[in-house]
Amino acid sequence: MRQTTSSVATIDRLINRLVASERPILFGHERPDGDAVGAALGLMWLLRGLGKRVTVSFADPLSANLSFLPGAETVADLPVADHDLIVALDGSDERRYGANFSAALNDPSRPPLIAIDHHKTNTGFADESWVDSRFAATAQMVYALALQAAWPVDQRAATCLATGCVTDTNAFTTDHTTPELLDAVASLMRRGAPLADIIREGIALKSEADAMLWGRVLATATIEDGVAYALSRLVDRNAVNASEGDGSGIVSFLRNVRGVALSILFVEQEDGQTRLSFRSNPDTDVAALALEWGGGGHAQAAGATVALPLDEAVAQIVPAAKRLVSASHTDSGA
Amino acid sequence: MRQTTSSVATIDRLINRLVASERPILFGHERPDGDAVGAALGLMWLLRGLGKRVTVSFADPLSANLSFLPGAETVADLPVADHDLIVALDGSDERRYGANFSAALNDPSRPPLIAIDHHKTNTGFADESWVDSRFAATAQMVYALALQAAWPVDQRAATCLATGCVTDTNAFTTDHTTPELLDAVASLMRRGAPLADIIREGIALKSEADAMLWGRVLATATIEDGVAYALSRLVDRNAVNASEGDGSGIVSFLRNVRGVALSILFVEQEDGQTRLSFRSNPDTDVAALALEWGGGGHAQAAGATVALPLDEAVAQIVPAAKRLVSASHTDSGA
Repeated sequence: MRQTTSSVATIDRLINRLVASERPILFGHERPDGDAVGAALGLMWLLRGLGKRVTVSFADPLSANLSFLPGAETVADLPVADHDLIVALDGSDERRYGANFSAALNDPSRPPLIAIDHHKTNTGFADESWVDSRFAATAQMVYALALQAAWPVDQRAATCLATGCVTDTNAFTTDHTTPELLDAVASLMRRGAPLADIIREGIALKSEADAMLWGRVLATATIEDGVAYALSRLVDRNAVNASEGDGSGIVSFLRNVRGVALSILFVEQEDGQTRLSFRSNPDTDVAALALEWGGGGHAQAAGATVALPLDEAVAQIVPAAKRLVSASHTDSGA
Repeated sequence: MRQTTSSVATIDRLINRLVASERPILFGHERPDGDAVGAALGLMWLLRGLGKRVTVSFADPLSANLSFLPGAETVADLPVADHDLIVALDGSDERRYGANFSAALNDPSRPPLIAIDHHKTNTGFADESWVDSRFAATAQMVYALALQAAWPVDQRAATCLATGCVTDTNAFTTDHTTPELLDAVASLMRRGAPLADIIREGIALKSEADAMLWGRVLATATIEDGVAYALSRLVDRNAVNASEGDGSGIVSFLRNVRGVALSILFVEQEDGQTRLSFRSNPDTDVAALALEWGGGGHAQAAGATVALPLDEAVAQIVPAAKRLVSASHTDSGA
């Protein structure tokens, strides 16, 4: 049954389940981000501190930016067999946890399943869930649970949980960064979490290929009529041995130029299509623009993939973006 | 007399001075940064809330990134005449507050002078000082003073004080970011400080010229043997109408490349010299390198200006930087 209340009683029931287990297995969602990994490894250290044999399983390998986390080397893609409790962290849908998790879900003899998640879209797939979207990160929820349980929180747990809090708010820059999130990070720093290192390792560090691609992509940047855009061309990615995801930070960089309302990164694909990444400032809603081109997303961050070569995509979408910016600023009276 | 103790009694004496004044004038240091301006404007709103006629004076105009602060439009370069208290904020030396401040210092009939500063190098130039380097920002000290005085803190004061806290820690990324600093920002958010906007306006926003220069400078980037460097050439700055300070963020960007221990930005000068900006990771100390070339700074951030043209500066300094990185990693056993 889905539980959206953040009541002490709900948390207590989860604490009791965790305390009663001896061999829990913790899953975060596939293609794990810093919050999924930070919440899972943080909970692992908390439960190991209670003497439990804990396994952490992810369907996909951890990104290089999360390899600094204590316990990252223990993570693998593991089946549920031989565990007595399943914990699902930070994934709102049972289909987002990968094949081992799905196999267990369909096994009538599986152990109990509990979930902790800060996404309000959580489907309530677990036997018992604590879902509360007032938390900025699932790792923040795990820390609140640890405090309610009065468990010891060592430096390893604190580092993992702080990493979830920091990465899910992009280092405190997103609109859902709350004072409570800052309180949690301050408290985790007092337990040894190295904030400057976490921001650097978890967010700021780039590969050499990514950094070299920035120069090539930014050299294509154009800023006109409140729209900034740049091109990630195959020829440039190949020249510096970069992958498709490299240079993705450029669209936020361009959004943060004075006078820019909307930014676009055009990413040329191997198959001749073009992937679009949109960012905007609060006056301008890019979700509708992305939807119009077959994609989707949020008001300030959205994306789409169009069946057009790079040049044609620029020729069609930049004018549409300019019209949107013009209309947004007319609407708001500016 | 210099006071380095952060005692309740010291703060109370300053509170009494502030409460007793009717027409205080607040100075921050010249070439004001976000902490000088945030502390001064924050204190201005606090004192105006108590019914006082408050003036804020800076020797230099505010940078564009601070123009969003409530009250920024009231700041001017003003003489001390007709005020009954001088407050010096965030400048460790009496020579750092500009001509109007210096003129008042030399006037035997000047009003009393108090100082609030978090730099341990403060010379104790004021009649009464509160200096405490455990604070990450002078704005954080002003907030602590307001709490001790139990003054009302409105949204305008909270926004200015939070901006000082955020900018002086470069959005929580510097090593002197403390849990207490996060506590203060969380508390200021609860009083209405818009954290995401403050980070964006105070730190992330760039001019169009700055953004366009990034592409040109990054296109010159070279990464070799743990050293990353790039060139800010006059021809590139002129082409995009950029000033000498534009592109300065690139040296931190390059420091945050995996495998890089030390980064350098070479800035070609009009007079044929070359300005060097160094950044490093904790294993490598660039202060000595900067000193060797006639400059100075901190272990992880330093600079110098050399009487060499750009190409020659690169030819001489890059090998020296590589030797430093090599020696640093031998020393630490890596």
